[in-house]
This record gives sequence, C-alpha cells and structure tokens, in this order.
Amino acid sequence: MSTSQVPCPDAPLDAGLLSPVRAGTAVERATCDRAWLQAMLDAEAALARAQASLGTLPERAARAITAAADADRLDLRAVAVEARETANPVVGLVRAFTAVVAAECPDAAEYVHRGSTSQDILDTGAMLVATRALRLIRCDLARAASALATLAARHRETPMAGRTLALHAVPTTFGLKAAGWRELVLDADERLGRLADGGLPVALGGAAGTLAGYLEYARIGAGHNGVVPDAYLDELTAAFAEQTGLAVPVLPWHALRTPVADLAAALAHTAGALGKLAVDVQVLARTEIAEATEPGAAGRGASSAMPHKRNPVLATLVRSAALQVPALAAVLTQCLATEDERSAGAWHAEWQPLRECLRLVGGAASCAAELAEGLCVNPQRMRANLELTGGQIVSERASAVLAPALGKAAAKRLLSTASQQAAQSGTPLGDVLAALPEVREVLSPQELVDLLDPAHYTGAAGALVDRALRR
Amino acid sequence: MSTSQVPCPDAPLDAGLLSPVRAGTAVERATCDRAWLQAMLDAEAALARAQASLGTLPERAARAITAAADADRLDLRAVAVEARETANPVVGLVRAFTAVVAAECPDAAEYVHRGSTSQDILDTGAMLVATRALRLIRCDLARAASALATLAARHRETPMAGRTLALHAVPTTFGLKAAGWRELVLDADERLGRLADGGLPVALGGAAGTLAGYLEYARIGAGHNGVVPDAYLDELTAAFAEQTGLAVPVLPWHALRTPVADLAAALAHTAGALGKLAVDVQVLARTEIAEATEPGAAGRGASSAMPHKRNPVLATLVRSAALQVPALAAVLTQCLATEDERSAGAWHAEWQPLRECLRLVGGAASCAAELAEGLCVNPQRMRANLELTGGQIVSERASAVLAPALGKAAAKRLLSTASQQAAQSGTPLGDVLAALPEVREVLSPQELVDLLDPAHYTGAAGALVDRALRR
Amino acid sequence: MSTSQVPCPDAPLDAGLLSPVRAGTAVERATCDRAWLQAMLDAEAALARAQASLGTLPERAARAITAAADADRLDLRAVAVEARETANPVVGLVRAFTAVVAAECPDAAEYVHRGSTSQDILDTGAMLVATRALRLIRCDLARAASALATLAARHRETPMAGRTLALHAVPTTFGLKAAGWRELVLDADERLGRLADGGLPVALGGAAGTLAGYLEYARIGAGHNGVVPDAYLDELTAAFAEQTGLAVPVLPWHALRTPVADLAAALAHTAGALGKLAVDVQVLARTEIAEATEPGAAGRGASSAMPHKRNPVLATLVRSAALQVPALAAVLTQCLATEDERSAGAWHAEWQPLRECLRLVGGAASCAAELAEGLCVNPQRMRANLELTGGQIVSERASAVLAPALGKAAAKRLLSTASQQAAQSGTPLGDVLAALPEVREVLSPQELVDLLDPAHYTGAAGALVDRALRR
Amino acid sequence: MSTSQVPCPDAPLDAGLLSPVRAGTAVERATCDRAWLQAMLDAEAALARAQASLGTLPERAARAITAAADADRLDLRAVAVEARETANPVVGLVRAFTAVVAAECPDAAEYVHRGSTSQDILDTGAMLVATRALRLIRCDLARAASALATLAARHRETPMAGRTLALHAVPTTFGLKAAGWRELVLDADERLGRLADGGLPVALGGAAGTLAGYLEYARIGAGHNGVVPDAYLDELTAAFAEQTGLAVPVLPWHALRTPVADLAAALAHTAGALGKLAVDVQVLARTEIAEATEPGAAGRGASSAMPHKRNPVLATLVRSAALQVPALAAVLTQCLATEDERSAGAWHAEWQPLRECLRLVGGAASCAAELAEGLCVNPQRMRANLELTGGQIVSERASAVLAPALGKAAAKRLLSTASQQAAQSGTPLGDVLAALPEVREVLSPQELVDLLDPAHYTGAAGALVDRALRR
Repeated sequence: MSTSQVPCPDAPLDAGLLSPVRAGTAVERATCDRAWLQAMLDAEAALARAQASLGTLPERAARAITAAADADRLDLRAVAVEARETANPVVGLVRAFTAVVAAECPDAAEYVHRGSTSQDILDTGAMLVATRALRLIRCDLARAASALATLAARHRETPMAGRTLALHAVPTTFGLKAAGWRELVLDADERLGRLADGGLPVALGGAAGTLAGYLEYARIGAGHNGVVPDAYLDELTAAFAEQTGLAVPVLPWHALRTPVADLAAALAHTAGALGKLAVDVQVLARTEIAEATEPGAAGRGASSAMPHKRNPVLATLVRSAALQVPALAAVLTQCLATEDERSAGAWHAEWQPLRECLRLVGGAASCAAELAEGLCVNPQRMRANLELTGGQIVSERASAVLAPALGKAAAKRLLSTASQQAAQSGTPLGDVLAALPEVREVLSPQELVDLLDPAHYTGAAGALVDRALRR
Repeated sequence: MSTSQVPCPDAPLDAGLLSPVRAGTAVERATCDRAWLQAMLDAEAALARAQASLGTLPERAARAITAAADADRLDLRAVAVEARETANPVVGLVRAFTAVVAAECPDAAEYVHRGSTSQDILDTGAMLVATRALRLIRCDLARAASALATLAARHRETPMAGRTLALHAVPTTFGLKAAGWRELVLDADERLGRLADGGLPVALGGAAGTLAGYLEYARIGAGHNGVVPDAYLDELTAAFAEQTGLAVPVLPWHALRTPVADLAAALAHTAGALGKLAVDVQVLARTEIAEATEPGAAGRGASSAMPHKRNPVLATLVRSAALQVPALAAVLTQCLATEDERSAGAWHAEWQPLRECLRLVGGAASCAAELAEGLCVNPQRMRANLELTGGQIVSERASAVLAPALGKAAAKRLLSTASQQAAQSGTPLGDVLAALPEVREVLSPQELVDLLDPAHYTGAAGALVDRALRR
Repeated sequence: MSTSQVPCPDAPLDAGLLSPVRAGTAVERATCDRAWLQAMLDAEAALARAQASLGTLPERAARAITAAADADRLDLRAVAVEARETANPVVGLVRAFTAVVAAECPDAAEYVHRGSTSQDILDTGAMLVATRALRLIRCDLARAASALATLAARHRETPMAGRTLALHAVPTTFGLKAAGWRELVLDADERLGRLADGGLPVALGGAAGTLAGYLEYARIGAGHNGVVPDAYLDELTAAFAEQTGLAVPVLPWHALRTPVADLAAALAHTAGALGKLAVDVQVLARTEIAEATEPGAAGRGASSAMPHKRNPVLATLVRSAALQVPALAAVLTQCLATEDERSAGAWHAEWQPLRECLRLVGGAASCAAELAEGLCVNPQRMRANLELTGGQIVSERASAVLAPALGKAAAKRLLSTASQQAAQSGTPLGDVLAALPEVREVLSPQELVDLLDPAHYTGAAGALVDRALRR
Repeated sequence: MSTSQVPCPDAPLDAGLLSPVRAGTAVERATCDRAWLQAMLDAEAALARAQASLGTLPERAARAITAAADADRLDLRAVAVEARETANPVVGLVRAFTAVVAAECPDAAEYVHRGSTSQDILDTGAMLVATRALRLIRCDLARAASALATLAARHRETPMAGRTLALHAVPTTFGLKAAGWRELVLDADERLGRLADGGLPVALGGAAGTLAGYLEYARIGAGHNGVVPDAYLDELTAAFAEQTGLAVPVLPWHALRTPVADLAAALAHTAGALGKLAVDVQVLARTEIAEATEPGAAGRGASSAMPHKRNPVLATLVRSAALQVPALAAVLTQCLATEDERSAGAWHAEWQPLRECLRLVGGAASCAAELAEGLCVNPQRMRANLELTGGQIVSERASAVLAPALGKAAAKRLLSTASQQAAQSGTPLGDVLAALPEVREVLSPQELVDLLDPAHYTGAAGALVDRALRR
C-alpha cells in the first residue's frame, strides 16, 4: 500500500479522450475513480462515527478513522487491480485503509469496517457520488432553464415554421419552442430532485442484509447490558444516514435495487430531454435553414480540414450523450432482476454504467447550459423560411375557413389539390386559390391575403409560453 | 370501410403464441389492437364533447360522434394496412370513422376530428390504454404484495441460508426475503401510481402544438362574439381532460415525451422488481435446493418429454418478461431526443414498444400474483440446507466473537484457515475450532455449539420484517 | 381442440395497427402466429419423415403426420393460451396435433413428437420462419440495391453539398451518396445471406441435448438388431436437416444460442443500413433543402390536418423500425448467457423479439425498396443549395491551393478569417479573397473563380461510384 | 503543448476501480486513452508514409512525422479537454502534433494531416486499437478453448444431471457441457477472426468522403505531370492500408458504419458466449450443488465479512461484462442510422462504447481462460446429485420403454403419476414403478433397476463430444 499521490507508472489514464462531452467538466471530477474511492472512505468514516454515536465503538477510533479517510493516502491503482481477486474493490480498500489507520492510531485499526460488508460501503459510496454529481447537474439544468425562459419570453411572438415529419406544417413561435425545451429541462430537474432531495439511501445490511455483523459487534462492544437488536437496527441506520447526509431506507437494498433503477430512469430522462434540445438546434443550424447558431468562441466548432466550418459542437456533444445513456440505463434496470441476497455479477455490472450515466448527463448538462445561454436566434431568417412554401404552411387554416361553406372534407380536398398545383407550378398558394370561384365566393382578395399570412396563424403559441413560464 | 366484427380473412392473427406470459390475460385484452382503436375513438368522442361543452361544436353532433365511437364498426385491419400510406393509423381512422358517423347522422360528420391532428388522437388514446392497463397491473401487484406480506409475517423467524455470489453467506429468514420482494412490489406500485393517479395527460396541440386549428374552428363555430384564444386554450384542455379522465398537461407534448418516458421507467422498474422475485424462486426451486416450489395445478409445469417435471413456469414467464422490458423501455427513452414539432420516425417507434411494455408487465404481474399467493415454502429443507456447511455459514459471527481476544484481522485469518480446513476434510467447523487452543481459551464447548447454530444468527431479520410490513 | 379456421371469438387481434412499417407486408404474413404454428408443425412432420427414412418410425405414420400438419386444423388461440401452463406452446401443440393425427390415422398418433422435446420443435420452427422471412427481405434488398445502382450511375456527376455536423462541408455527388446507400444494403444482404444460405441449423437435442429420447425410441423402434447410437446421431441430424432444408449443427444448441445471436446481429445491421438511407432522405426532403422527395402515390403522405402535406412516410416508417431493432436485438444477444441445458426464462424471452426483428426489418426493406425505386431527385435544387455559402463550401480547396505559398497553417487561418468575414457580411468568399493581396499574388481573378466553383471540387466521387458499382 | 509523460495534475484517473473485470489486463492497456492517442498518431504517420510512397509528399517529411508520432510527446489530457471545443480530439491532436514535428523538423510540419480530416484519423486509429485488442482477446479465447477441449475429453463419460428450467431433466455428461462451452468460444473466435483477419478497413475519405483534399494536395505536390485522380484514389487507399496493416474498404465509410457494427456484433457474441460459461459455473458452484469450483489462489474469492467464503469471482467478473456488452453494442448498432456525410453526434457516440466493449470482452476473455484452465470438477458430487430424484431423472426413458406396451400417451401419464407419488412420498421412482402391475408385465425387477440408472441414459453425449472436438 502506497500513500503517494502519483499513480503507479503503468496505470492506464482515462483522460476523457473518447468522451469530450464530459472531459474537463466538474461532474467528471466528481465521478472519477478517485472520487469513488473517497466516497467509499467517507462511507467507512461515517459508519465508524455512527457506531461511536451509539456507544458501540470508541469515539477516539471514529475520529482516527475519519482523519485517515483520504483517498490520496491509498494507491488507487493497486486497489483497482486487486479487485480482480475478490470481484469488488472494497476488500482491498479495507485492507489498505486499515493499514493507513494502523499507522496513525494502531488501536483504531480494529474498528475499521466493523460488522460491515463490501456492498454497504460500495453502495453508500455510490449514493454519495451520485448525490454530489446530481448537485452539479442540477446547477447546469437551472442555468439552462433560466436561459431558455429568457429566450421563450423574448421570442413569445417570433413566428417560425412549425415542422413535422421534416416538412413545414403550420407556423409556431420560437418562444413556444424554447418554452418546450425548458419544460423538458424542468421535468428532468424534478425527477433528479426527487432523488437528490432524500431519495438516495444509505446501504446498511451487513453480509446478507440482516445486519447480523453489526449487531454482533455492537453486542460485544457494548458489553452485557448491551444493545437491543431491534432498536439498534433503527438507531444505527438513522445515525449512518445522518453522518452521510443520505436517506434512511426501509430495508437493506443489496438485492432490492430501486435506488439504482431510479437513478437510471431520471438520468436517462435528463439525457433525452437535453437530446431534444440538441437535435432541434441542429435542425435550426443547418446551412439551408440557418435560424439559429451556437454561441461562438475562439476555435469553437473548428474543423481539421475546412476553414469555414463553425460546427454546432455543443449540440453534437449533447446528442452524443443522449445516444448512449438510454442503453446504459437499461443495463441498470436489467440488473433489478438480481438473484439471492447478493448477485454474482448483476451488482458488479452496475458500477461502470452508473458512473457513465452520471458523467455523460453531467457533461451534457454543462454543454446544454452554455448552448442555451448563448444561442443566437435569427428571426429574419425564420420569417424568410416561413414564406418558402408560398402560403401552403397555412393550408390548414384556409381549409378550416372554407369548411362552413364547402363542407370540411371538400374544403380539405380543395386545399390539397390547390397546394399540389402551387407546389408543382411554383405559384403562391394564394394566387392559386384566388383563381378558384369557390374561394372567391367566400373570401375577398384582401381576406385571402390576411388569411394566408403565416404570422397570423400561430394559434395559442403566446398563451402557451405564458402558461409554461408560470411553472 | 366495413362494420363487420370479423377480421378480414387475410389478417395475420397475433394470438399470443410467442408471448405466453400475457396470453389470455386481462391486460392483453386491454392493450390489443382493438383496444387501441377503441381508445382512439374514445379520444375523438371526448374531443367532440369537450368542444360542445364550450359551445364551439353542436351538442347533437357530439352525441352522435360519441354514439358512433365503437371499434367494432370499423375494419381494424383496413385501418392498420392503410396506415402505411400516412405512417400513422389516425388518418385512415378519421376517414373511416367519419363515414360511420355520416351514415348515422350526416350533419355530425362535419365535426369529427375538428381542428385536430393525428398525434392528439393517438397520444390521448395511448394514455387511455395505459391508464386502463395500469389499473389491471396494480390490482395484480396489490394481490402479490398482500400474499407476500402474509409470507413475510408467517416466516418472520424461519431461518434459511442467505446466499451471496452463489454461496452460503450468513443466515437470514425467509420472512425477510419475502418482505424484500414485497418492498420491490410496493416500490413498483408507487411508481406506477404516480402515473395512474394524474400523471398521464391528454394530448392536445393541433398540427404543430399551437392549437391553431382548434382555435380557428372555435372562432368559426362560435361566431363573431367568439372565443378568446388564451382562455379557450385552457378551457378546451381542461374540458378534454375531464371528458377523458386524464390529466391536464402544461404544454402540448407532441415533441416533449416525458409521459412516455415516465411510463417506460415505471414499467421497466416493475418488470425488474417482479424479475427479482422470479429469479429468487428459481434458485429456491432448484432440485438440489428445493426450499420452495411453485403452486401446483393440473398440467401446470408439464414437459413435452419428461413425465416427472413440474417446471417453475410462473417464475419462468415472469423472468421472460423481465428480460425484454428494459430494452423496450430504452427504445422509448431514446425517443425523447425527437426532432422538430413532430418527429419523422421517433414518435412512430414508440407505439409498439409501449404496448409491449404494458402487456409484458401486465402478464408478469398476473403470474407474480399467482406465484406469490400459492408459493409452497419448505422450512425443513431450509433448515437442512443451513446445516450443509457444517457451521461455516456463521464464520462471520465466530470471527467477531474471537476478535476482542485475537484482534479482528487475526480472528478473520483464523476463521479463514479453519473454514478451509473444514471444507477440505469434510469436518464441521465447530470440531475444527474446538481443537484450536486460541478458541478454547475464549469459548467453552457449549458456547461454541451455541455460537455456531445458524438459527441463532439471523441478526435483525425479524425486526426488519416488522419494519417492512409497516409500510 | 378445434379444427376451425375462425379464431376463438375473444382472441385479441393484432392487425398491425401500431406497426404500420410492416402492416400488410409479405413478411408480416410469413412471421405471424399462424406461420409460426405452421413452421412448428412442419418441424414435427419433418422429424417424423427423418425418423422414417432411417427405419425407426413407420413410413405410413410419417405420411399421416405430414398430411395432418396444417395449422388451420389447430385452434391457434387455444394453443397460445394453454402455453401459460407450461411456459411454451409446444406442449399444448403436441397434444392438439396428436388428436388431429389420431382422428385421421389412430396408429400414427403414437409417433408424433417421438423422442422429442419442446425446444427442438420451437427452435426448428423459428429457423424455418426466419429462413422464409429472410428470403422475402433479401428480395426487397435486391430491389433496393438495383434501384440505388441506377441512381448512383445516373447521378455519378451530379454535384451536391456534402454535409457534416449539419453544415455544408465540401461538395460531393448524389451518385456517391446513392452508391453509399447501396453499399450498406449489399453489406446487409451479405450478412443475411450468410445465414439464409446454410447458416441456420435444425435444433435436435431431445430433453437435455443428448438425443437420449430419440435414441431410446430408435432402439425400441428398430428392434434388437437396432441402431448404433453414434451413427444414428449423425444420421438423424442429417435426415432432419434434409427434410427441413436447414443446416446441420455441430452440437444441439438449446443452450448455445449462436444462431439466434447471428440473426440478431444481421437484422440489426440491416435495420441500421436502411435507417441510414431513411435519415438521409429526410434531410434531403426538408422544406428548405428539397433536393429529393419520396415517390408520390394517391393519398400517400397525407396528414389528418394539413392539406398541403406530402410527408416522407416511407423514410419515416423505415426509421421507426431502425429505432426499435437494435434494442430488440440486444435482448437476443443478452440471452446468450443462458443457464443450464435450457434456461428458465432466457429462451422464452427470445421468441417475441426475434419475430419483431424479422417483421420490422422486413417491413423496412419493403419500404426502402419502394423508396429507392421511386425517389425523385432534384439536381437543380442541389446546385442551388451548393451556391448558398457563396463559395465557402470549397474553402478547404482554397486553403490547399494557397498552402504552398503561405504555409499550410497560415493558409488555413487566412481562409478561416475570410470565411467568417464572408459569412458575417453576406459577401461571396471569392470577393473577400479577391481583395486580399496574399491571394492576388497567387491566383488570377479567373483562377479564383474556377477554384471556387463547387462543381469542380468533387474529388474522386465519380471514381468511387465506379468502384462501388463494381461490387 | 507539453511533451511530459506526467499527466497534468488534475486529470481524473480511471484506474479501473469500477471495472475489475479488466483492471490490470493487457487489453485494458491496449485500449486506454494513451493507446488510442498512439493509434491516431500511427494513422497520421502511416498516411504520410503512404503519400510519400506515391511521390506526393517528401520522404524526409514522412520519416520525420513517423519519428515524432509518439503519444508520450503529447499532453493527453490537454488534447482530451480541448476536444470539447471541436467535438473530437483530432483537431487538437493535429495542432499539438504539428508542433512536435515542427520542433524536430520544421519543413515536415507542413505535411502533417495533409489533405486529411478528423474522421480518417480517428476511425483508422480505432481500427488499429480494435485490431490490437482483438489479437489479445483471441489469445485468451484460444487458451479457454484448449482448456475446455481437455475438460470435454477427460469428462466425456462423466455423468451429471442435465438441468432445464432449473430442475433435473435427464442425465448428460460434463464432457458434453464443456464441449458446448468450447463450441461457443470457437463461434466467438470465428466471428472475431473474420474482423481481425482483413475485416477492419482503413478510413480514408477526406472532409466529406470524396478524397478531394488528398487529391488537391497530391495535384499540388506532384506538380503538373501530376496525379490521375481515379488511379490515385486506389493507390492511396492501398498504400495507407499497407502502412497500417488494415484492409482496403470499397468506399470511405465515414457514414457507412458496417465495420463498427460488425465489431459490436462480434464482441457482443463473445461476451454472451463467455457469459454462458459463467452462469453455468455459478450454478455448479452453488453450495448445495458443489459440482465445480473455481481455481483457487491465495486471497482469491475472499469476502470483506465472511472468512469461509471462496466466491466464484472469475465467473462473477465474466458475467458482469456479459451483462453490459449487449447494451453497449446496441448503441453502436443504433448509430448505423447516421445522417449526412458525417453525423452531428452519432459518430461521437460510438467511441466510448466501442472501447468499453473491447475492454470488457478482453477482461472477460482473460478471466474465462483462467477459469477454464483451473476449473475443479467433482464427479463424485455429480454422481450423488444424479441420485437425488430417486430415478425420476430418467422418467423419460421409462416412459419410452413402456410406450410400446401401453401406448405413448398412457405411458407418459403413468410415469407422471408415479413420479408425483414418488416425490410426495420420498420413495424412489423404481419402487413405485415396481409396485405397478402394468410395469411388472413389461419389465423384470432387474431390468427396471438397469433402466433407471442415470449413468446408463446419457444418450449420444459421448459421440457429441467427439463430434464437437473434431471442429
């Protein structure tokens, strides 16, 4: 066991080279191997303090254990490699950490990991890491939501083409689009918040979820007048929760993996919510559409080949995360069906996908916040694109207006034929309609012009923005 | 358009042949194509009534539309096949349904699908189907939870081997195991309940989510003193929600797919929760373990080859669902990243996986309820298996008891060596320990016997059962 | 057991309502429940004939069994529902089929499913269904590949914007794009062909993969001069393969699921290959881009709301399949890790996803063939879009040409600045460059004009088309 | 840009803590960030040498570029973090590498990445990493296959219970089980071999897949007597392939992702194939079954709590990988549906999952080789377990033998009833049968005893082993 900070020389470094969405972000730091090691040590220390608070472990030992619980004093790589022998890193961590404690305070070494089991430490550590990562993620979601609220309010009335199945459908406003993005971000934050605020529990079960080891040591530690098992269970769990800041579970959850499945669900939702923003921005950024561009920065979006390129890299990074997280989350959900009091593999399959979900979502949230805060919107271009179909984009409206006179089905048929004719001949729809006697009977030329102005057919877009912003 | 109940002769029938977990269940019926067709017609009818309640559509038309909204009057197969032309079944449904209405009440035909769009109808229909299916699923979860509570209480003290990584770890009780299964079932029900009780909204957005068509028709329908757009938006959404029994969304969610992602998450959790029960029962049912068997029934569990077989078929069916749902749910989550005001494909990819999640989970819940209600538990066999390791299953306890005298690490080493020796020689661990002077100094022969009785080392299992049953 | 063709009245009908990509296609018919039932009966009949060909079953019985093996004589729904009791449909199928045989030829009933096990029949049936479906899929892939070859050749020189990260990059030709789509279709067909042409084996193992039942019945059937076990194994497997047209496996594969994983891989590849075509067509079909449109047909692409819409429905349907298949295929791959001689669930989880992969891919192939055969390409629009960036699309080329004089890095910087200036001011890049002394020293005005013509910078596009078409 | 080997101090280290299946393995090293960086530099150097070999780049520059292509001379972390600006690490890598080259040989700097694009370098680098990783994986598969062949041959005749749906079915031999595991390993190796031996191509397309940049620089580099575009395309691709040892693709595959999908499929198959071995070993290792144990090693399989534990850690690690890889592979397959000439996100989503598939499978192969080489088999225990059902495990055989006299259905019914009676009363099946007159008429007591000996009913198990070992 080494106490050096320098990784052992042949440790392969994951520098984020293949995952730029999170390289260099705060959440990457909060979820890196060192952070997990620290969180597991935090769990060991909190457990000792919890036991001490109940009189079943000496205060002095708890203090020494807490003082020694510093990841930099362990050889991270050695702990990792040793885990191949035991299928989890806690066995080696306990050995190495006990030596660190022993070097400082020999008596306290006896009290490290007392009554405990690998899974209590790893799962509690995971919940600490998740809590810390969620805090960072929610900050970025708040930034994104705030910026999107501003965009929604500012562009409440900015008309643009609503697009369905890749084609112009009917007009909408950019404000409503931004309000929709914000709505998803708030949905995501609400789901993460349920977990961050009291939804993630400590793990405390002992070898097979009965807390037998904890009780046995407590009995020994407390002497004959000792502990009342049933009360001690509640007390120890509560004390451990208090020391870690995590929630109190109903039962030990070694094999009842709802907390992990909940994280998977909320993180996959968040990735998808941000992914929606990303794919929309990419559509708007297309050379031919050009209604929005990403915030510029020196070198941002550069290509190795093409000098003119300013690639929508933030949206690209967000989307790269959104494409990965659902599958990783499915691994976690799949692991709910875990056998026995601890699975021989299903538990072990969770760790890396959980971390990856956290850091991909964290990276995506960071990119999305920057994207939302700096998005450049081009209302002129939106207006110009609205005119592209020569009025066909409001064919629905024309159809509705003609329906009372012609019947709904006949009106739709008329507009369908007229739109086709307009498209084929390149004539504005208004001109085609103006030539039709059935239309002229119902609408004056000016009424027709007004009717076909896309900016007049944004429906309740503005009211919907207001409604969304009240959330 | 046919009004016959007989499927068109060349319609390929899905009779559930490849999905026995749900074949013949109530949830299968509630989610079959006819049920979706009916739910979409229910949505059309509710929309007409909602518009009528606001005075923008004649009451008489709403009544006629409601009366005609019967799936048996449409040719389901024709609607399905026609959907290839438009990529969704609503275009054809509206055409066929309009004809049915016209045949009964020509005036009312004008008011079918008024101002609406395919996605409003399909999504609202999907939420109705989901609501109906969730009701059935939750009934079965309640049955399962109740049966598991009984098992947990009855076996609060029944000792059995706790197993981790496939091996005996320390003792537990069957009551705690059953309490854990129930905990997961309650977790699942809680998550489904959030959706069933007000979490699933109507879809009401019109062509691109602005409600423009609804407003336009309302304006026309209401005459010049007409509708106030902003108020009408709220009123129409509320009325539609009231008519369907669904919730009011903040915004139209054509491209904001949180409700679908929420369903995916809750259903995947439920599948996994039930999957945990299933894989545990399969372990307990193994020929060599034989601690529990599935409820018997004539022909149940028979093999086509082996007359002696009574296969654990309920657990097998549940597990078959648990292996499928997470991936299907991931498809739904993946579709959150949907472009524009309506995706060209991501929306369409949701329908079949959503239905499959509902009916697989429904089938699994039905099997699980039957399994929980009829599970045969064999405490004698549990006790016999507990003795298999000759006391090694309580090595943790012996280690704890010897720790004060020998030090924790030395005690663990001693037990490790003694256990290995016991295992290799086939001697009970107690005999090996009794021969060791270090042990004899600390424990009398009788103390050693008591210490190594697995039934005395179930920790807080009983208290945990009580705690869990208070939920 | 009923022999009626009419489904039992309460059978929920799957008419394809939620899966328009395959509703009404040939592959839907080839993979429906009735087709699976027929394939399993085909397996029973082939097994009887194989045994008869080796003299271990009377010829007359084999003929009677073959004659009776007609799915319409069984009650599909009853078989499906009964499968809940045994976790697979074969137990009930054998009972019902034996009764059909007995009604025609009482002696032959004795020889139904002789020595066999459910999995031999279901797996062999699945391979027959897959073989039949692959044949249909490959026909559609051949149609698509042929149409794409024509497009590639015709548009070998048609310049269009190459797009990367949503933006114009450098020019390409539509011919190269079409050649790429074809390349993927050929890749897919090659992978499917490996399976269709001898890669899908019969399943023949008996109860636990030892063929013990087959040997026992053969011993009994052949009398004392009997069968040589080792030879009989080879003979029976070969005869069964011959009777079914499937391949001979090395070992029984009840728990060695390579054939299913291979199908999953090849089908997921095909879905993705067609998905690439679909997403590209959707980009080209966008209102603002308009470089290609789907083949028109009456009513094709209509919207329930908007009369002017001609949605790219074929591409939408293909994409809806491409979004589902990879996850379904992952279920199949996941099931490779199957325990024992037959899994309690992992086998059962394969059936529905395998069918769904086959019919989604089949539906997608059918749509893709139609799409490729009818795609309308608009070279004028491609040319117009190429001009949109005022020459920036060839900034790479300008940079290369200036590199010898200025140095590569400086040339790239110059172009980067000039492009930014051109974009901000709306000036053509050529004008910006023409004003720069560094450029004027190297290039004459005419050289600059020639250099910046996008149609002159399509690289080896034409040669690549030729190369691809030689495959 | 730094040339130091020390990671920048705040680089989060991935030491494999959460992925013990691969921590410390050779494949981890071969796929770490440094290895990817090196592979991308290898691609740059090979490209320069290829161009030099065709006379379009000075030999001297190619030599300098090759000499400088050492990952230790770049700041890996800086390259990784900088990638956030451009969405891929190649832009920064080219800048940093150019500086390294310039420091050594200023003239050569001009020729770095000449005509190239990020994706050519990253994709070629990925194929190099994959090739190197596959070599390691296949070595471990060969070790595993060889050890399994030995087990299969040695235990050709060792009878054990065949298990289906968790219960004893009919006997098999351990040799056949081992032969089955080997069969899957060979299947996996065959699929990986198709890729390792010429299936993984260089990526060479330039900015949008037309090679225009390469041609332009070649034209400039070669002077007026210059290059013939069509020939140069073939020559450059061939030369690049030769320099890297990779295959020649038909077309540039920036957006035609068959090579990545093929890797995904083969790696997912391998993970599942090894997963089958793992879950089987876990069943056999169960305390109650105890037919096989993992190879022992000091400290191997230790628990942090329970001194007696020798957990099946190798199988656990393998299974942990098998649970993750299919979902990661599905991400890769999903990315086939990638838009345009380069996707804004789908390409970027591939990198991390591809690496993770490679290193999880590599770790699993390493564990599986060790597991297969050291597996301890316990034939005595297999024999004892075979007796557990008192002969019911051969009920199929008894049924077959009685069929000629009683009829097949009646014989099966008789055995079914007798087995149930035997199970309920705890009587051996032989005793129950011996008391039945129908049986006594057909079989003498001794015949009955012989008939019910499980070791006599292993069917063609031995012959199947021979057959499998001939592969």
